[in-house]
Amino acid sequence: MESASTEPQLTEPYLTTVLANSGLGVDYVRAEGNTVFHLDADGKEVPVTDYCGGYASLILGHNNAELTAHAKAVLDSGIPVYVQFSRHPAANRLAVKLNEIVARETGATEPYFTHFASTGAEAIETAVKHAEFDRVLKVSALMGEIEGHVAQARDAAREGRLTVADSARVKAAAGTPSGSTAASPQDALEHLLAAVARHNGEVAGRPPVLLALEGSFHGKLMGSVQLTHNSGFRSAFGGLGAQAHFLPLDQPDVLTKAVDGIRARSRVLDVVVTDGVADVVERDFPAFCAFLVEPIQGEGGIRVLDREAAEHIQRVSAAADCPLLIDEIQTGLGRTGAFLASSLVGLRGDYYVLSKSLGGGVAKSSVVLVHQKRYRGEFELVHSSTFAKDGFSTAVALKVLEMLEAEDGAAYRQAEERGEMLRAALDRVRADYPEVVKETRGRGLLQGLEFHDQSGSGSAVISSAARSGILGYVAAGFLLGAHRIRVLPTASAPNTLRFAPSLHLTEEETGHLETALRDLCALLRDQDEQRLAG
Amino acid sequence: MESASTEPQLTEPYLTTVLANSGLGVDYVRAEGNTVFHLDADGKEVPVTDYCGGYASLILGHNNAELTAHAKAVLDSGIPVYVQFSRHPAANRLAVKLNEIVARETGATEPYFTHFASTGAEAIETAVKHAEFDRVLKVSALMGEIEGHVAQARDAAREGRLTVADSARVKAAAGTPSGSTAASPQDALEHLLAAVARHNGEVAGRPPVLLALEGSFHGKLMGSVQLTHNSGFRSAFGGLGAQAHFLPLDQPDVLTKAVDGIRARSRVLDVVVTDGVADVVERDFPAFCAFLVEPIQGEGGIRVLDREAAEHIQRVSAAADCPLLIDEIQTGLGRTGAFLASSLVGLRGDYYVLSKSLGGGVAKSSVVLVHQKRYRGEFELVHSSTFAKDGFSTAVALKVLEMLEAEDGAAYRQAEERGEMLRAALDRVRADYPEVVKETRGRGLLQGLEFHDQSGSGSAVISSAARSGILGYVAAGFLLGAHRIRVLPTASAPNTLRFAPSLHLTEEETGHLETALRDLCALLRDQDEQRLAG
Repeated sequence: MESASTEPQLTEPYLTTVLANSGLGVDYVRAEGNTVFHLDADGKEVPVTDYCGGYASLILGHNNAELTAHAKAVLDSGIPVYVQFSRHPAANRLAVKLNEIVARETGATEPYFTHFASTGAEAIETAVKHAEFDRVLKVSALMGEIEGHVAQARDAAREGRLTVADSARVKAAAGTPSGSTAASPQDALEHLLAAVARHNGEVAGRPPVLLALEGSFHGKLMGSVQLTHNSGFRSAFGGLGAQAHFLPLDQPDVLTKAVDGIRARSRVLDVVVTDGVADVVERDFPAFCAFLVEPIQGEGGIRVLDREAAEHIQRVSAAADCPLLIDEIQTGLGRTGAFLASSLVGLRGDYYVLSKSLGGGVAKSSVVLVHQKRYRGEFELVHSSTFAKDGFSTAVALKVLEMLEAEDGAAYRQAEERGEMLRAALDRVRADYPEVVKETRGRGLLQGLEFHDQSGSGSAVISSAARSGILGYVAAGFLLGAHRIRVLPTASAPNTLRFAPSLHLTEEETGHLETALRDLCALLRDQDEQRLAG
Repeated sequence: MESASTEPQLTEPYLTTVLANSGLGVDYVRAEGNTVFHLDADGKEVPVTDYCGGYASLILGHNNAELTAHAKAVLDSGIPVYVQFSRHPAANRLAVKLNEIVARETGATEPYFTHFASTGAEAIETAVKHAEFDRVLKVSALMGEIEGHVAQARDAAREGRLTVADSARVKAAAGTPSGSTAASPQDALEHLLAAVARHNGEVAGRPPVLLALEGSFHGKLMGSVQLTHNSGFRSAFGGLGAQAHFLPLDQPDVLTKAVDGIRARSRVLDVVVTDGVADVVERDFPAFCAFLVEPIQGEGGIRVLDREAAEHIQRVSAAADCPLLIDEIQTGLGRTGAFLASSLVGLRGDYYVLSKSLGGGVAKSSVVLVHQKRYRGEFELVHSSTFAKDGFSTAVALKVLEMLEAEDGAAYRQAEERGEMLRAALDRVRADYPEVVKETRGRGLLQGLEFHDQSGSGSAVISSAARSGILGYVAAGFLLGAHRIRVLPTASAPNTLRFAPSLHLTEEETGHLETALRDLCALLRDQDEQRLAG
């Protein structure tokens, strides 16, 4: 299946060898719908059913004919692709359309303003940058307010109209031992203000707090990789970016406690003067930059956020005034039966991030939606990207939305139905091979099938692959070689296969998959390492 | 010129207002070569000559007919666009072709391995991530070696075969006052080792050192924005990423001193045992992640790195074993008369980063080239991006290279000639308006024209625009409205207009520009604020 080549391997040579060794090093020469084709020894096309779906970028399938025709028409139209710093009416139409859809699904009554980027990771970066910009401005406003109070207190003290309270709060703030007295009210005030400034400076100097869930995947750029939970992706680059707090998805108490703890440790001190007496009060500080949530963790193993967990996250974030950033890069654009998977569990974002299928499988597009109440227009002068908001990808994205929304959202119903068909097939396999399949999970056309840990298998090949975390890749190589099925494990949960086919998944394709999975499960159960290793 | 719209402005509303106020809020409806068109009140196309060139993404011009035909043929061919985790022969052909060109221009005899991404900023992030991955592995190897020496010393001490040297280095390392003696050789060794471990832990725990030049621009993502010198772009986000040391371009001594200082402060301690005596030595530590250099600073005001500065940077980096990362995003792909602008001043990179024109004005593509001697294959399993290495952008990029390389590189000669023609026009304007134009700078088709500071102008409009840093935008609005010329100032040097037209710049277009610039200069000289403000 591998094409002979006399060229040196100069792009990702290591990965190329890994793929070749696991039977995945295939040259696909053509793609259509859910099918990719490679050539056999005689140069004849061999069809392979693709459940990877461009890592969920292909809700409309490979080379969707209607979309391709549109893309070609866009190229023919001669519209400018890159005209930065001019008006971009197509981008605005896209923003308006996205707002209509989001309002319909979430009931939002205020608009979301949009920023465009080119990839999912870039959009995450843009969203977090905006959240941090907003936070820094809030910090600035709060500190300015406190400085104003300090100046007022100083003025009053200078005029002899002020004494400092002997309250426990003042003593605690100033670190004054009980019973000690300052030389004069003015000295006492300065002592207190110095302590307040020290404390506030320390709190304000801390890095922003970024919250993310264990198992999360939000990209691999220098900043966003620090929001991705898998330490293999993240840890070598700790010196390059802000650190995130990773919180468990399924332990609401731990989440509440962590957020409350951060709030408690992040209070600043303000000075209040009442009836000529200066006292200190604690004030909440905008420590939180954002809480990033995927409605379904994709790379993390197709872990579905349920309604209860969503409500808890929503409540905790609101209480802490922590902007909720919903990463719909993999789940959005109809894959789960709604445009936003988060809308199905009632989760409401301050930010939404979309990409992948937004580009229709040909263009590269991503977008951040920022709720009006958080929006800072000045950010537009601070952030930009050469390729963002381009004429080609925005025109393609508009067509994608048009296709999804056509016939009163037939695509969403189709995703739900085909997803249920796919899930039923996976569930039948699980029911028949309970000793091999641990769980099936997912929603709509984003499904996962998790194997039991096979590291205790009687087959040395299987147990060793399981122990080194590559059994999912070995299984993928088998499904491809023996059954012409393309599927891959999720990156951070390598015992889980991910299924993200297009809307056009057929009964026949699903039947083919079920047969292949049954074969795989049987040989894992029977420890048939000969067949597995091909 | 602005199209009426009843739609709310939901994408970048603030910027839209800024553009409208400066006369730049134009809807361009078509583009071809160096010309973009908007509609007049009667719906007739008005041609505008575009010197922005998609922020230097359009070396082949807007909607290049040959390239567009190729892009359409790619869409028709049905090749897969997104088939991650399979072989990507087109990407590899691109890598091979890039290597041929780089070897020809730089004389490199060893290959560069490539990683693809989608945008320039993403490629910078990928390159810095790779450099940091490499650095962390080097740190690990060095620390492992030192631990080995420590274990050997401990073994020898346990067997009574070791004494600790009474050298000044040991005293300094262990912080032992002169003349003091430890209870036993083993205790003395443990005391020393504890001090060595403390020192090394502190050095190894520091963030990576990233060097960049003042005036640099390397992107605006959470990580890469910290490598961009303009503090307006960077400072609010300091909590999100690693910090860079920004060094002056034109003060070699400052550069040398800064790098030497970092080296001197970054030494770790190793333990050597010679003839049964343990002593300490200082060893160089891989503190440097990368030194990022643009051959011509684009956003920074078209500042050209000359051969002398290039040689100095090369020497200093080599001495410090600091990987040199050459950002050719704006300058590469032939714009300056060579494929790599850095090759014209003899600069040789450990990393090269390309993007912008690589996508041919329609696709989004970027690539990092990593010299074999720095390359770490394992990085390929740690870093990836859904949209990278896609079938569409790699096929388009291959065509771009084919077009640039055709007829023995006619495009490079054309860029040089047309660039000289453009520069001659700018120089004539400068010669005739020395009181208005401070300098012209650039190479090939990347040129800048800097105005003298106009904040002392007798015109209140001009001086106030100059003082608030927007005179360049006011000038751009005038050139567009009065002369149908699209040009913009550089982001971080707003008194400098940037000219980055395509290869196909004509004598007529250049003449038109010269006329327009003469008019602009005359009215700045004459303080004709009525005409300037339109």
